[in-house]
Amino acid sequence: MFSFGFYSSNMAQIIDGKSIAANTRRQLASELKELVAAGHPVPHLTAVIVGKDPASEKYVQNKMTACREVGISSETKVLPESTTQEELLQVIAELNQDQRVTGVLVQLPVPEHINERTICNAVDVNKDVDGFNELNIGRLALDMDGIVPATPLGVKLLLEHLNIETRGRNAVVVGRSKNVSLPMAILLHADGKYATQALDATVTICHRYTPPKELARYCRQADIIVVAVGKPGLITKDMVKPGACVIDVGINRIKDEKTGKFKLVGDVDFEEVRQVAGHITPVPGGVGPMTVAMLMHNTLKAAKKQFCERKSS
Amino acid sequence: MFSFGFYSSNMAQIIDGKSIAANTRRQLASELKELVAAGHPVPHLTAVIVGKDPASEKYVQNKMTACREVGISSETKVLPESTTQEELLQVIAELNQDQRVTGVLVQLPVPEHINERTICNAVDVNKDVDGFNELNIGRLALDMDGIVPATPLGVKLLLEHLNIETRGRNAVVVGRSKNVSLPMAILLHADGKYATQALDATVTICHRYTPPKELARYCRQADIIVVAVGKPGLITKDMVKPGACVIDVGINRIKDEKTGKFKLVGDVDFEEVRQVAGHITPVPGGVGPMTVAMLMHNTLKAAKKQFCERKSS
Repeated sequence: MFSFGFYSSNMAQIIDGKSIAANTRRQLASELKELVAAGHPVPHLTAVIVGKDPASEKYVQNKMTACREVGISSETKVLPESTTQEELLQVIAELNQDQRVTGVLVQLPVPEHINERTICNAVDVNKDVDGFNELNIGRLALDMDGIVPATPLGVKLLLEHLNIETRGRNAVVVGRSKNVSLPMAILLHADGKYATQALDATVTICHRYTPPKELARYCRQADIIVVAVGKPGLITKDMVKPGACVIDVGINRIKDEKTGKFKLVGDVDFEEVRQVAGHITPVPGGVGPMTVAMLMHNTLKAAKKQFCERKSS
Repeated sequence: MFSFGFYSSNMAQIIDGKSIAANTRRQLASELKELVAAGHPVPHLTAVIVGKDPASEKYVQNKMTACREVGISSETKVLPESTTQEELLQVIAELNQDQRVTGVLVQLPVPEHINERTICNAVDVNKDVDGFNELNIGRLALDMDGIVPATPLGVKLLLEHLNIETRGRNAVVVGRSKNVSLPMAILLHADGKYATQALDATVTICHRYTPPKELARYCRQADIIVVAVGKPGLITKDMVKPGACVIDVGINRIKDEKTGKFKLVGDVDFEEVRQVAGHITPVPGGVGPMTVAMLMHNTLKAAKKQFCERKSS
């Protein structure tokens, strides 16, 4: 009996991203009400999808649902797979020009004949609610106020919400993507004194060329692990220090061997790792909802900035 | 006799930044000759100094000397300490406009009444030979072609010149400055396949909040240590793995207790660490000359891009 109780109390706290995200959306909804009550227009987000991809459609649907909940006006433009880069750039240019549109996002990935980086850079820096424009990435790197990519921003909010100490702690980011891992590493290591209010942790960036043994060693030393790679089961129990906070950004669709059905899992061996970690995010229901909530945060922030600039000009 | 020989062969190779930089300047001089022979104008670098600072004056002098050696036309504008931010922005705007000027740098630090970030961002991104503009930093973060800050670029060239293996190796960057450490961490960890031809190492960023014990542990695991902090003697022998490559970016003016004179030292206890390291940069004569040579590289690169764009427009 005692040993069961002891074991149970040592299990990780499962981070309820869904409920923290719902709270955030409620806060944003009341901020938006105040904004509109003060005489400003309703912020408007336009999402662009090129081609047919069930995962992309699902993601954009979730974003549109969140917009409705927060009170943001929104629409989705679905362009055919055959859209050329020039045509897509033209659509973006029109949205950039349109005063009614305060936020623009192009759902990634775009088809292979379109250069993703050219597209991300074409979105007006002030309407770039994804924070993927080269100027927003530069501002983040320089600790300047700007729009921060939603996933790393959501992870930061989770850590803060849970009072996870980060200053001077060891953090490991597994992966080196430009949309998640690099901005995450920047937010984790940079100075808390500046506009991004970063987290002052010691940060290690591991990636495909980090030998597995070294990855395991870095992870075992970490107080915080953020993994965003796309490899189910990459982070195992033996790689996690007791009490560490494990944030799983991975979303992988795999076949459940018991039921034969497909299911979503992250990059962490959840059932095993929860036995040693202090905190752990589930997949789904961990980082995913936070990403959408932070996109709403970015959309509101971008709109406020535009309204403020219009007023002063 | 044998034991002396053995000891001696275990001493680190001292990296001769001075001679590698001299080689680089010679190569750049011949590139410049070709450029001019092909009918292009001579590239021109204008350096701006605000106020009187002996160290800044010395740095700018070194840069002007390097310009002469490479064949770059150059001039230094010295503005009084009392120059306002608006006046400095006006000077930068004129240099940005001036077609004859292909490179602009504002020597840092600027006086306290001027916002350094505003100044760095005001320099035209194509003339920004320091690579400090927010857009150049964003491009570096995204592995895009752009202008990379000279010091981390110089360290990268040293590592390549010495055939130091970096892919999958452990690198530690000590410090988190935006002009040196962060771009260094980006160049060390990012993907070798893209425009920046980064180094694919596993990278840890340590800084003021990294506990000394942890700093020592990270350093002892490192194959490559780059330190840019400004603390003489920070990196000691016991913190270095035998055979590691130690790159010292620090420049500190201290009083030599033996002679009573001032001398320059880095952040590494050179005499001790050279007994265990595989490669080590001296201060002075290590990274310093590389920084100036890479500034010349950036100036030539920026000019070529401008000439090419003028031709095609």
